[in-house]
Amino acid sequence: MALALASAPALSAGTAYSFAAGPARLPDAVLERAGETLFARGGDGAAAIERPFTGDAFRATLAHARERLAALLALPANYRILFLAGGAMQHFSLVPMNLLGPSRRAAYADSGYWSRRAIDEGRKLAAASVVATPPAGAPAVPDANGWDIPADAAYCHITPNETADGIAWPALPDPGAVPLVADVTSCFLAAPLDVSRFGLIYAGAQKNVGPAGLSVVIVRDDLLERSPLDLPAPFSYAAQAAQESCVTTPPTAAIHLAALVFDWIAEAGGLAAMAAANAAKAARLYGFIDASGGFYAAPVRRDCRSPVNVRFHLADSVQDAAFVAEAERCGLFHLRGHPRVGGLRASLYNAMPMAGVDALVEFMADFMRRRG
Amino acid sequence: MALALASAPALSAGTAYSFAAGPARLPDAVLERAGETLFARGGDGAAAIERPFTGDAFRATLAHARERLAALLALPANYRILFLAGGAMQHFSLVPMNLLGPSRRAAYADSGYWSRRAIDEGRKLAAASVVATPPAGAPAVPDANGWDIPADAAYCHITPNETADGIAWPALPDPGAVPLVADVTSCFLAAPLDVSRFGLIYAGAQKNVGPAGLSVVIVRDDLLERSPLDLPAPFSYAAQAAQESCVTTPPTAAIHLAALVFDWIAEAGGLAAMAAANAAKAARLYGFIDASGGFYAAPVRRDCRSPVNVRFHLADSVQDAAFVAEAERCGLFHLRGHPRVGGLRASLYNAMPMAGVDALVEFMADFMRRRG
Repeated sequence: MALALASAPALSAGTAYSFAAGPARLPDAVLERAGETLFARGGDGAAAIERPFTGDAFRATLAHARERLAALLALPANYRILFLAGGAMQHFSLVPMNLLGPSRRAAYADSGYWSRRAIDEGRKLAAASVVATPPAGAPAVPDANGWDIPADAAYCHITPNETADGIAWPALPDPGAVPLVADVTSCFLAAPLDVSRFGLIYAGAQKNVGPAGLSVVIVRDDLLERSPLDLPAPFSYAAQAAQESCVTTPPTAAIHLAALVFDWIAEAGGLAAMAAANAAKAARLYGFIDASGGFYAAPVRRDCRSPVNVRFHLADSVQDAAFVAEAERCGLFHLRGHPRVGGLRASLYNAMPMAGVDALVEFMADFMRRRG
Repeated sequence: MALALASAPALSAGTAYSFAAGPARLPDAVLERAGETLFARGGDGAAAIERPFTGDAFRATLAHARERLAALLALPANYRILFLAGGAMQHFSLVPMNLLGPSRRAAYADSGYWSRRAIDEGRKLAAASVVATPPAGAPAVPDANGWDIPADAAYCHITPNETADGIAWPALPDPGAVPLVADVTSCFLAAPLDVSRFGLIYAGAQKNVGPAGLSVVIVRDDLLERSPLDLPAPFSYAAQAAQESCVTTPPTAAIHLAALVFDWIAEAGGLAAMAAANAAKAARLYGFIDASGGFYAAPVRRDCRSPVNVRFHLADSVQDAAFVAEAERCGLFHLRGHPRVGGLRASLYNAMPMAGVDALVEFMADFMRRRG
């Protein structure tokens, strides 16, 4: 029994849930194992969090994390996995710093808040063409066809799941010979992913990978040749790949936790099992909203609804504040929408059990009975 | 009782010690508290590691860490504390990216391995003048006087404690009107520090602050005006200062652990108490080495010996490998010197108890009796 269980009745009682968009809930089994494995000293006088990054113990953890992740993704052999300190947002800049090449030109699809943040940062470094914008009408992704991508674009950037907007791409665009680059932060490991469609993907860890302060980059090895030799060493994907993410001391504890999460996913049946569970949770919540007779509404166009960031609102938005406050009294936290988007949002990443969705739906039904 | 204690007899028995240069030992009390506070879910359905960085709970932790650190350092009001993802090495580049200004010129003192790494990265971005180099003879810092610093230098960079070389500056140079910038990674919080002598200091966390994957920057507020507006937002000291280190999701768990370490330092008597304990540990180990009749030797010039990274070697370096192997069998780990420096090294940061130094000295005496 981990100490966590003894002093946190909510964990076993399962009565309180955080629906935060991230940092998000970690799997119960990972929380239980984390203290034992990260903070308990071994015969070498060190706990995992204290071990040198150059030593055999951490190198074994790093290799395990890399191999387990590659297996989960059935990753082709010509892709490299990097575990880097910091979140996804730095890659808004590191992608152009590494990949731009002589044309200094890149294409971006605008599908919502986070892709626009990537565009804003990209414009500081590149001639960034926005090749797709959202359609009029209900929130949705741009049309995936007919993009006018400059022939000399170094890459085409998309955001397959828009965390703030609750929008997901139902199908990937095909930019032809231009490498597709994607910020997969909020959908990474939520379902199988055909990495061979991409030149590079990146994800912040704090949704489905582990704690905040770590990001994962997966890059096709031919693109590593583009990293300029005069880049700051920690920011060079090529240097990090050559030194197995250890150009400088990596976030060892965060990588240790990520390895525990990858183990948990594998033990739970892999990414297909994650996808099935996530689809069931999303169907339960969207299904309830759609059947609420308009008391609740999910504004995103149906084919673009994110399975992991469920955006919704009350028909009477004046009641939003009461909804959030009452939900908290019932143990359901962080249901407010992203500040730039408004409304309500429930993030249902891998670690959210169906029991959490059940509790939310039950509360929403009760709130509707009382206020409807 | 934390779980860590139950499953790690070495912790209470105190028979094994890691002398690694970093990631390094954390205080016992912090390891004990860490599992309880980081991984145990509360009434909000979240453990500290799962809480959103925008929420009240993490913001309180962040404010506590900042205020506690400011109090430990008696920090003047015109300095800002940043907690950033990633280690010290990124600041080899972020310092010039933020501070260079129109002259694009900077001065650097070369005092050993890590300052040379900073110079190498600085040269990618700046006209970097090396204004001081080590003297001939025993390893030592450069003379602190007579530096020819260009009048338009944006800053003068030093490394007050050279982790790899085991060299410390006995007194700080005075670069006049040019702001002094220092990589204080391995001496930060090991003793009181007059921050008002510096324009900016930075430190990787994995020595005396917390886990790897976090760095601390303390910057005089007038220097923030130099950050170019078109810098990538996460890399802008000014943007990070304006948004209290939350331009993007910060490494929340690492900051939580840092707050626990700052509390431990305060409870132990603050930085003066750390300095006294570190001086006593250093005196014990250097004293034994100096009294070993030449069997062991500390090569650094006496006035420049690092109190926290004790570099030494055997008169007969052929025995180095045997020393390291036998030490490990006695529970004393990571005594090999930095690969670029060679020899042996014992790092004695704040969390190393005198008992660890006693155990090392006892082993060294026994090894000498058997091999001398």
